[in-house]
Amino acid sequence: MKKLWGGRFTGSAEEWVDEFGASIGFDQELADQDIEGSIAHATMLAKCGVITESEAEVIIQGLITLKQKADKGELEYSAKLEDIHLNIEHHLTELIGPTGGKLHTARSRNDQVATDMHLYLKAQVSEIIELITEFQKNIVHQAERNIETLMPGYTHLQRAQPISFAHHLMAYFWMLDRDKQRYMDSMKRINLSPLGAGALAGTTFPIDRHMTAEILGFDGIYENSLDAVSDRDFILEFLSGSSILMMHLSRLCEEIILWSSQEFQFIELSDAFTTGSSIMPQKKNPDMAELIRGKTGRVYGSLMGLLTVLKGLPLAYNKDMQEDKEGMFDTVKTVKVP
Amino acid sequence: MKKLWGGRFTGSAEEWVDEFGASIGFDQELADQDIEGSIAHATMLAKCGVITESEAEVIIQGLITLKQKADKGELEYSAKLEDIHLNIEHHLTELIGPTGGKLHTARSRNDQVATDMHLYLKAQVSEIIELITEFQKNIVHQAERNIETLMPGYTHLQRAQPISFAHHLMAYFWMLDRDKQRYMDSMKRINLSPLGAGALAGTTFPIDRHMTAEILGFDGIYENSLDAVSDRDFILEFLSGSSILMMHLSRLCEEIILWSSQEFQFIELSDAFTTGSSIMPQKKNPDMAELIRGKTGRVYGSLMGLLTVLKGLPLAYNKDMQEDKEGMFDTVKTVKVP
Amino acid sequence: MKKLWGGRFTGSAEEWVDEFGASIGFDQELADQDIEGSIAHATMLAKCGVITESEAEVIIQGLITLKQKADKGELEYSAKLEDIHLNIEHHLTELIGPTGGKLHTARSRNDQVATDMHLYLKAQVSEIIELITEFQKNIVHQAERNIETLMPGYTHLQRAQPISFAHHLMAYFWMLDRDKQRYMDSMKRINLSPLGAGALAGTTFPIDRHMTAEILGFDGIYENSLDAVSDRDFILEFLSGSSILMMHLSRLCEEIILWSSQEFQFIELSDAFTTGSSIMPQKKNPDMAELIRGKTGRVYGSLMGLLTVLKGLPLAYNKDMQEDKEGMFDTVKTVKVP
Amino acid sequence: MKKLWGGRFTGSAEEWVDEFGASIGFDQELADQDIEGSIAHATMLAKCGVITESEAEVIIQGLITLKQKADKGELEYSAKLEDIHLNIEHHLTELIGPTGGKLHTARSRNDQVATDMHLYLKAQVSEIIELITEFQKNIVHQAERNIETLMPGYTHLQRAQPISFAHHLMAYFWMLDRDKQRYMDSMKRINLSPLGAGALAGTTFPIDRHMTAEILGFDGIYENSLDAVSDRDFILEFLSGSSILMMHLSRLCEEIILWSSQEFQFIELSDAFTTGSSIMPQKKNPDMAELIRGKTGRVYGSLMGLLTVLKGLPLAYNKDMQEDKEGMFDTVKTVKVP
Repeated sequence: MKKLWGGRFTGSAEEWVDEFGASIGFDQELADQDIEGSIAHATMLAKCGVITESEAEVIIQGLITLKQKADKGELEYSAKLEDIHLNIEHHLTELIGPTGGKLHTARSRNDQVATDMHLYLKAQVSEIIELITEFQKNIVHQAERNIETLMPGYTHLQRAQPISFAHHLMAYFWMLDRDKQRYMDSMKRINLSPLGAGALAGTTFPIDRHMTAEILGFDGIYENSLDAVSDRDFILEFLSGSSILMMHLSRLCEEIILWSSQEFQFIELSDAFTTGSSIMPQKKNPDMAELIRGKTGRVYGSLMGLLTVLKGLPLAYNKDMQEDKEGMFDTVKTVKVP
Repeated sequence: MKKLWGGRFTGSAEEWVDEFGASIGFDQELADQDIEGSIAHATMLAKCGVITESEAEVIIQGLITLKQKADKGELEYSAKLEDIHLNIEHHLTELIGPTGGKLHTARSRNDQVATDMHLYLKAQVSEIIELITEFQKNIVHQAERNIETLMPGYTHLQRAQPISFAHHLMAYFWMLDRDKQRYMDSMKRINLSPLGAGALAGTTFPIDRHMTAEILGFDGIYENSLDAVSDRDFILEFLSGSSILMMHLSRLCEEIILWSSQEFQFIELSDAFTTGSSIMPQKKNPDMAELIRGKTGRVYGSLMGLLTVLKGLPLAYNKDMQEDKEGMFDTVKTVKVP
Repeated sequence: MKKLWGGRFTGSAEEWVDEFGASIGFDQELADQDIEGSIAHATMLAKCGVITESEAEVIIQGLITLKQKADKGELEYSAKLEDIHLNIEHHLTELIGPTGGKLHTARSRNDQVATDMHLYLKAQVSEIIELITEFQKNIVHQAERNIETLMPGYTHLQRAQPISFAHHLMAYFWMLDRDKQRYMDSMKRINLSPLGAGALAGTTFPIDRHMTAEILGFDGIYENSLDAVSDRDFILEFLSGSSILMMHLSRLCEEIILWSSQEFQFIELSDAFTTGSSIMPQKKNPDMAELIRGKTGRVYGSLMGLLTVLKGLPLAYNKDMQEDKEGMFDTVKTVKVP
Repeated sequence: MKKLWGGRFTGSAEEWVDEFGASIGFDQELADQDIEGSIAHATMLAKCGVITESEAEVIIQGLITLKQKADKGELEYSAKLEDIHLNIEHHLTELIGPTGGKLHTARSRNDQVATDMHLYLKAQVSEIIELITEFQKNIVHQAERNIETLMPGYTHLQRAQPISFAHHLMAYFWMLDRDKQRYMDSMKRINLSPLGAGALAGTTFPIDRHMTAEILGFDGIYENSLDAVSDRDFILEFLSGSSILMMHLSRLCEEIILWSSQEFQFIELSDAFTTGSSIMPQKKNPDMAELIRGKTGRVYGSLMGLLTVLKGLPLAYNKDMQEDKEGMFDTVKTVKVP
């Protein structure tokens, strides 16, 4: 029963196969991390004697040049070269000649992409933690000014007991505090280096995984190479933590929408954060709050999407995993805005 | 407790508010539908005497010009103008002068965007149905050539009884047939016109909703104006039908991956649809099958995302609903490829 | 009765393996359908000469007796006997002796359980359609009495235009109408008979699948035996249609909760449908509306659960599929209450 | 527009309203925690002088008696009494007379149910952590015996490089280790006391929240009373951590299923953990592995369900939240079995 479909599909790879398989459309977001990881890798290869010091220098100088171009948006990407790794490698070889090819020694795209994503998420989560802290400060600031402001406390959306508006606001402070705690806890799993795991079984070259981990600021390395290339827990943890954060924001936004209705009239939103209506000019729509509440669905969806992708996948790397990126990028973008 | 936050947020709308609220980044995909709907609307307005015939002619000529530019990718979009409707309207007024503004008579962006999406999904679902039919023909073609090809039939992934490979393949034919049926059933709900519902309560202008519905090829109109602008069932139905389709494809892809493993060796994939490995040149990775299996997660996620968005929204239109588009566009793209 | 497969098993199966694998805890809900399907099967076996008429008569009389006991709740189920099929078969053999064993001729539990679920869902969906019609009548009744009742029409939860309360209510009428349409469309896929598909490849006995289909009131049969035993689309369609229905109800309930708040005061709920508070006796909590809104999550979860189970499963039957029942039963119960 | 529906629904609460609103069917699982929390509460009330020492003694003796009855399964529950709290309180008052009613002083069912669930999850998560450790030991044991056992390492389910079976197994050890870490991290949020938050705004009685927290073994208290009664993050965290754990198990089970197929033949499962087939006696079905893989869907579904419930809920307590329990109980049961 061999070659059952072989006959039918003979012929050169059609254009769409390339495009369908390419991830460069979205993983170019990882350009910085890819270059950073490569610099660390080249440094280590030289230190371990796998390449010469002068080869490493040429490679690193080339990578720095590419990073400058990338930062200016001058690096061109091609779907023919599939992903960010091959695109960068191609540009490097064009720039510095065949020495560029040595960068791939003792490395596979499987450990490379995992490294890029760990680096990326580490930076993003740090930034998100800061943004949450900033938001918490604003809440405290509002609360301080409203300790004496009375409002009804609700259960079942029925007025129950009078409370201070400050007290109500501070409930969100504490929700955000847990969100921050969760992101910080997840850092333990994000901040580990998979570099050196190769395709799945490490490499026979005498590399030093601890050295690259240290250069890249990781707290440690993955203990198992199959796990290193097939683990996407750190992204799932980011997506579930972000789902809970968005749930909190959806509750706050629901309240802002209620409070700014004509029936409640507890707050009046600034014109800067509302829109009107061409037909009804007196209206002030709480668009921002509605949009944030709506974006909750998007983050929940990304979480469910990646959980689905990973369900039942045998070890180690499978191409399905390429689906890990867009939901992550989108979620980073979504939670960073509010 | 009024103006509680008013002081704090005083100041002109910051740049990011515009960008955060803008949907033009993705809804430009609806340019054709938006123009088509507007032509029908202008035609009707003239027939009903709301605008003059010559005004309608100028508007329609302007819209045709814009469509030609859009088709050539020459229409520029601006986030300042928020969405596809305001962008088109702006271009129209620039082109034909203040008469362009009359197009908005007796219409709101709420019924306009709903109309655009109904038109869009009608076209896409028709195309998807054709693609499925094509795929079914390929399956029948393969099955005809493999009636005598014996293979093990499995339960619990244990060999159970010998079956014809044709019989196995035809199981997928019937799954796809149900997918097609479901898409066709959903057409009853897709092919209805919300145009004329206005913001939520219709309009006092003497319009003819049946006329625009007929011009646009709809089978009928929404009976209730609040429902017309707040209904996104037709997208949910598309997403759930597509989730089931992707589930079917994920099962087929799982089998292709199993069958092309060295252990099964039931089929050999063409080089055109596989990739190799730089480290292991003998390998033939079933990338296409893995990617399609992986994309199942994305479609499930879009379904869950929109279900979340709509949960608990009061009538009629809420800005949260702007979140209905990206998952829809992405799912259309995803299911059309295989 | 020793375990059906006892002979083969040398090692002692631990207690929990039995319990973990048993589905009788929940699939006893299918007792009626299981017996109904068996009566049709026995009738057909006799008509086709696979068993004698008198054997069939004894079997059918036995099954009728069991059904009477089941209806009175007098049938005892045992986890040792794993599922509803083996439990019924065991009781039958106890009742009528070894002839009972002939019922299993030309049938497998794989096509049997699929038949049970098709029969079950057919009955439930018919009932749900009637309940929706009843609910729609109540809405029309309320609307008729409120044609002149004015209320604000909302967009963005901001008052936009005055509308008739009847008009607002009728938006829900039309949502429910689409729900009904979807359930009716799904009947085409529910009302098909998988009986005769055997474990996956049919049977060599000269059975008549059309005859059992007709006796059981099915509109037709599955064309492909692998598809017949591995298809769960009809349940997914039920779950996605029910998710949309629950989404509609969650919107109505959200409005009921808003309307009965002290700020809106549009309606006053009857004491029969509210609860109070021991601390705050004046409160009237809209518990029913909150519970229904909350149960939306449960139905969404069941849909996502079954989509996950089926993702990437190779043909034909896999034990994972046993997970198809609880979400279905729970969803039936949930959507039938309101 | 008041009493719009009032007329229609006049009449005594129908039976089904009681049943629909009752949670005793599932929350009786919290009997132990409810009693434990009440003992701590009574102890504190006496220490703070809110009730007398002798009242506290009578109450506590009564609760101990009820606990003994509950442990023996002799406590009867009634849907009329809605939930576990009212059922226990009713039994207590029957047992010790009107003094039982004093237990409810300075407490609401809102903080009571939150306390019960924190206590419950604390105990369950501790147990699950131990079970994971046990499982890890088994993996190490198997790995130690298979250091020299060579097997193919796979990417894309294609053989890539030879690896030690021990190395492959240890990948799962490390996945489970992260699962354990996540459960342990979540303990920081689980092990906090909401007791004393009352309905939403605390109480005017001079209670000592730190005392009850200490008696119950909590590490601290919730800082904000609205947050204390409306927070369900700790359950979401449990469900998302458990979803990742189940995803890991689904990958292991997929491999067990592959490895025990006739094509792979890497392992042979013990008869104790497989089932056969009446039609095909030679088969050994890996039912346990399939069931666990299938149960992944159930846990994902519970996560998605609770995320949906909480989306957009205004503060503080809403009845929707009653939906937090069944998914939690079911997930505890599911993850504890393997």
